[in-house]
Amino acid sequence: MKIAIDAMGGGSTPHPIVEGVVQAAGLVQEGTEILLVGQKAIIEKNLQSRFMPRGLPISVVHAPEVVAMDETPAIALRKKRDSSIMVAVDLVKTGRADAIVSAGNTGAIMAAALVELGRLEGVSRPAIASFFPTERDTAVVLDVGANASCKALHLYQFGVMGSTYASYILRRRRPKVGLLSIGEESSKGNEPTILAHQMLSQSSLNFVGNIEGRDILRGNVDVVVCEGFVGNVMLKFAESIDGLLTAQLKRYVMARLRYRLGTHLLMPALLAFRRELDYAEYGGAPLLGVNGACIICHGGSSARAIRNAIAVAQQMVKADVNSGIRRQLQENGEMSNE
Amino acid sequence: MKIAIDAMGGGSTPHPIVEGVVQAAGLVQEGTEILLVGQKAIIEKNLQSRFMPRGLPISVVHAPEVVAMDETPAIALRKKRDSSIMVAVDLVKTGRADAIVSAGNTGAIMAAALVELGRLEGVSRPAIASFFPTERDTAVVLDVGANASCKALHLYQFGVMGSTYASYILRRRRPKVGLLSIGEESSKGNEPTILAHQMLSQSSLNFVGNIEGRDILRGNVDVVVCEGFVGNVMLKFAESIDGLLTAQLKRYVMARLRYRLGTHLLMPALLAFRRELDYAEYGGAPLLGVNGACIICHGGSSARAIRNAIAVAQQMVKADVNSGIRRQLQENGEMSNE
Repeated sequence: MKIAIDAMGGGSTPHPIVEGVVQAAGLVQEGTEILLVGQKAIIEKNLQSRFMPRGLPISVVHAPEVVAMDETPAIALRKKRDSSIMVAVDLVKTGRADAIVSAGNTGAIMAAALVELGRLEGVSRPAIASFFPTERDTAVVLDVGANASCKALHLYQFGVMGSTYASYILRRRRPKVGLLSIGEESSKGNEPTILAHQMLSQSSLNFVGNIEGRDILRGNVDVVVCEGFVGNVMLKFAESIDGLLTAQLKRYVMARLRYRLGTHLLMPALLAFRRELDYAEYGGAPLLGVNGACIICHGGSSARAIRNAIAVAQQMVKADVNSGIRRQLQENGEMSNE
Repeated sequence: MKIAIDAMGGGSTPHPIVEGVVQAAGLVQEGTEILLVGQKAIIEKNLQSRFMPRGLPISVVHAPEVVAMDETPAIALRKKRDSSIMVAVDLVKTGRADAIVSAGNTGAIMAAALVELGRLEGVSRPAIASFFPTERDTAVVLDVGANASCKALHLYQFGVMGSTYASYILRRRRPKVGLLSIGEESSKGNEPTILAHQMLSQSSLNFVGNIEGRDILRGNVDVVVCEGFVGNVMLKFAESIDGLLTAQLKRYVMARLRYRLGTHLLMPALLAFRRELDYAEYGGAPLLGVNGACIICHGGSSARAIRNAIAVAQQMVKADVNSGIRRQLQENGEMSNE
């Protein structure tokens, strides 16, 4: 298996990305190869300064251009055919790689994957799926940003893709799928969710009905279906909780010795809570529904995040999640053609 | 000033509500009167068992019926004219009270206020405004549930109402208004937000542009404008963070003595964090944009929440927030008529 990694990530400092690759050495299975895509001279210099783990064949594929973080996806696609994103996607398109991992311009990666790889048979709109921590197990939330507005059919398909992902990657048997809305009754919500409720009810999925914002962290479902606008707002909201807790504790820590001591003793638990809420921890989010495995990481991803993203990419290819999605959509065929 | 309080709150146990009224005695200004609306015999029995504070004239207004929490608002409105909600709203409509506080069926309160009191001049859609804790000061988020889907004009008007509320109640000078979206650029979002961005930019408000999910808790703005679907999901999501933290700490506390000790020492700070995230703490959310002050509380509101809601109701009437909203809308007149 070959995993193409956009080594530039929107900037010109591949340090955390290369470091993440090195860290991933212990995670990857035999036979896996890493293709680092980007400016060859910079990447090789970076590689030389590191202790390279054995058993992880790394090769460098040259791509002279870089898509900046603020560039318009359409322009990046048309004018920067030799960017690390485009070259990495092309490696998958031409069968020279099985998966892409990128921490670059999200819009550009999505657009490149969509246009170059195309959609899976039966999928109207690919979606970005993110893991969320819960009181019980990890949940999959989708879409978290690929589609600002969605129709009922899209939401329904997110349910299918999310369910497949949860069962293949998180190993849940008959994953519980919930539709995010503003009331438990099927009549609550907006037009797309009310209609999607009907479609999901008639599907072969283990659909538990509408859920509310509070059900996500409680771990009441394995898969949360929502439009990209809501999912993206919630994801970024969740990432900022840590800051509120830290600010709160700081105020207290300053005030009294007991709090200083308490914080010190509790620090590992507090750090674990922060880690739970840290998107990077989960190593990027797959763009489900495209022909190929495409893992999107945060702009400023840490080496740890890149390492985890590589693990997710490997799992997706190995478990052949895409075949599962195709099969599930076929099983619920009539609905997809509505 | 007279504040009508729905003493039944969707159930038949007015205990926390009556207790909240008693607690509010120290908060209300001279001349304020409380009208407890509901089943007279039950309320009076409840009052008799309590130590009644001096200086808070309480009278009971009989309303024989109760709107259950799961009743359809339309039916409640048509068939239960003698419910505590309808009677309380009628007190305001007929000028016998200045504000309503209710912890009953939210849909029924909204419908009753909308139909009986009517909208403020120039307001297309009333919105529920909720306080959110932030790393800096409290922020106002609206809409958190009155309107699942919104047009640009509605979002723009939420900005006007939220800004007025923040300046009158939170005493912010030129409150910073942010439009919740999925990217900072004005072109990011869905159709209503992109259009609302233009309208808000042209208004007299201190509009800072699009904000993202992470900006809310960071306290980057005073007012967060969003459609009810997103606001409601986020509000309920925020309420469940506490559970995740508690579950996380429990796992650690069980494991080692140091964590047990640390948690013990830090408990006041952790409780403060929980309190910050607790909607009830802020004492209900006003339905802005109706002709009258209408404060909506959570179903299972505590006495503390009711007490705070009474304080908010009093502030709204005293500061005459509604005149401020009317004036602000007039100032931006042309936009409202688009």
